[in-house]
Amino acid sequence: MKPTPGNQPTDPLPLAQALIRCPSVTPADAGALGVLEAALAPLGFACHRLRFGEIENLYARRGTEGPHFCYAGHTDVVPPGEQGWDGSPFSGEVRGDVLYGRGACDMKGGIAAFVAGLTDYLAVHGDRPGSISLLITGDEEGPARDGTVKVLEWMAERGEIPDMALVGEPTSRLALGDIVKVGRRGSMTAWITLFGTQGHSAYPQRADNPIHRLIRVLHRLTAQPIDGGSEFFEATTLQVTGFDVGNTANNVIPAEARAMLNIRFNDLHSSASLTEHLHAALRTEEARYEMRVECSGESFLTSPGPFVDALKRAVERSTGATPALDTGGGTSDARFIARYCPVAELGGVGATMHKVNECVPVEELRALAALYRTVLEEAFA
Amino acid sequence: MKPTPGNQPTDPLPLAQALIRCPSVTPADAGALGVLEAALAPLGFACHRLRFGEIENLYARRGTEGPHFCYAGHTDVVPPGEQGWDGSPFSGEVRGDVLYGRGACDMKGGIAAFVAGLTDYLAVHGDRPGSISLLITGDEEGPARDGTVKVLEWMAERGEIPDMALVGEPTSRLALGDIVKVGRRGSMTAWITLFGTQGHSAYPQRADNPIHRLIRVLHRLTAQPIDGGSEFFEATTLQVTGFDVGNTANNVIPAEARAMLNIRFNDLHSSASLTEHLHAALRTEEARYEMRVECSGESFLTSPGPFVDALKRAVERSTGATPALDTGGGTSDARFIARYCPVAELGGVGATMHKVNECVPVEELRALAALYRTVLEEAFA
Ligand SMILES: [Zn+2]
Ligand SMILES: [Zn+2]
Repeated sequence: MKPTPGNQPTDPLPLAQALIRCPSVTPADAGALGVLEAALAPLGFACHRLRFGEIENLYARRGTEGPHFCYAGHTDVVPPGEQGWDGSPFSGEVRGDVLYGRGACDMKGGIAAFVAGLTDYLAVHGDRPGSISLLITGDEEGPARDGTVKVLEWMAERGEIPDMALVGEPTSRLALGDIVKVGRRGSMTAWITLFGTQGHSAYPQRADNPIHRLIRVLHRLTAQPIDGGSEFFEATTLQVTGFDVGNTANNVIPAEARAMLNIRFNDLHSSASLTEHLHAALRTEEARYEMRVECSGESFLTSPGPFVDALKRAVERSTGATPALDTGGGTSDARFIARYCPVAELGGVGATMHKVNECVPVEELRALAALYRTVLEEAFA
Repeated sequence: MKPTPGNQPTDPLPLAQALIRCPSVTPADAGALGVLEAALAPLGFACHRLRFGEIENLYARRGTEGPHFCYAGHTDVVPPGEQGWDGSPFSGEVRGDVLYGRGACDMKGGIAAFVAGLTDYLAVHGDRPGSISLLITGDEEGPARDGTVKVLEWMAERGEIPDMALVGEPTSRLALGDIVKVGRRGSMTAWITLFGTQGHSAYPQRADNPIHRLIRVLHRLTAQPIDGGSEFFEATTLQVTGFDVGNTANNVIPAEARAMLNIRFNDLHSSASLTEHLHAALRTEEARYEMRVECSGESFLTSPGPFVDALKRAVERSTGATPALDTGGGTSDARFIARYCPVAELGGVGATMHKVNECVPVEELRALAALYRTVLEEAFA
């Protein structure tokens, strides 16, 4: 990709279409990273294809000195689903100034916009100090095991940890740039088995009903909010997503009851402190129990500072509006990057992501490219 | 059976053994009622074999005038179980002065004791006014659909409803006659499905978690006792015996949650009033729900009066101790008879009923026969 002659900005549409036309449903790459590499190499990027397990990843960097700005994203997409698409989900066709296809907003469109934006940035500021990299994985929508995590380890070994990273997920809510995500809640799941003593419901005094105990524990855990939120975070939420006993005999008090709960937590907590919170609630019953906990990501926050300020200024210059700093929603690969450097998320409007007829207006793609160009200007200012 | 010559009481052991040797696991009769009929006919009983569905029943009455005393029981037994018996469960053998076999205490031994007792009663008082009947079913341990209920309907049609009925279940706790059951708690089961709105656990505000609602409802129902008991009854108990969701996705808030609960209730309640109690607890959630209720028996009480007094006097004369009037434990066919006439339950010690190596000391059987003879003397006094 080379800058459009004159002052015309580079159009992200052709690259977005070329990426969508690769049916790269996780874990398949289907040529997507090759398309991207072919766009980046002529711009002076040193490209590294990194394969971990069955996953293809791409790390591409232009320049060797600091500051080092990294754009992180993924070319894998969720399956298109069986039915309901007007046309093929991988056709990448434009109908009525809207680009259709799986990945149009999450997030092949975003990657194409970043490449267009950096092309124009380099055309003007290519001699500024600093380096730009792209960390693009094929394992974001999947188990996220052989993607960003492994590439970051590889980068750390080579001393290539960036000074700041922008994840290009479609974080905007209603208008482009209305949200900059500066953190994400953590997520953990607990599986609890509480043991009682089996018996006949006519003689409850001779039994010990584990359902009653588990109801008390879960009532205690859900009756009051865990916190009221913090400066940049919503309140922590605890949802009981499973409760099962498997007893069909109506007059039998069963021997055990099981529950599953999922907690989305802010920066007031860690998975360790919440695990202890659960243990404390369970211990009040003085009953035998087992609990297994899995944390899919601790909460993190990129505190306001130079990087977040640069993103705010870029949005203000590009859209005229001030973005809200937000930490809501599900998890993204930003949780892995946060272990290494300041990271924030800024991308298009994700209204149709993961849905049938996923699409993005071509004008929004172009506006996003302009926004990313401005982001680079502010980040390297 | 004829009275033993002289003043020797009739021994219930041979009849008990003959009954045990019929492997009458519900719904099989296996000859048990024939054995009983053969014992009763020579004593002047008009015997009616009543078959309903696949169930054999026996109604036998001696005399036609009032007062009419009915002894109710069953010859069917629960399965012996696979293992652990010393000897055959249907051998009816005596080892160390103890009679072994399925039904020894529940309740072939009791029936044999009653027949022995009435034999001796008739030998002395055969010319007193009144009549004695036996209502023996083969469907007490089963669904109880084609047994006592149907025989009572048949008796009602013929104008044979008794003036008082004694159910010979093994109600004694520690010593013969220590308990006279004058009522039973009711039993009902409710199956509840509560509906919410499915969603992602990261966005609980967009979902409506039916598990949380059901936990609140059940916590409300179980946190406080429903009552403190009444003069002759223990407190009503509510046991949640099932709680199931069937969701395996830890981050999905499911659309519905189901619970099952069993209530044993005293004479302060009816299944109708408790159904309303459940509805009231559910309505506080303002959520859609479905509830199905089945009542396997309303609570009943045979208030103190001439019949209960007669039983008390009989126990006092026979054992020297005053029985406690009690309403605890599970249900029996007495709940059906209570719709027609005063009914109480008095029988042997049921320590081994439904267990492996079910047995009864031969001395206890003989003492029970003497007690039943005294019961008849007091009932017809
Ligand atoms: Zn994405
Ligand atoms: Zn029984």
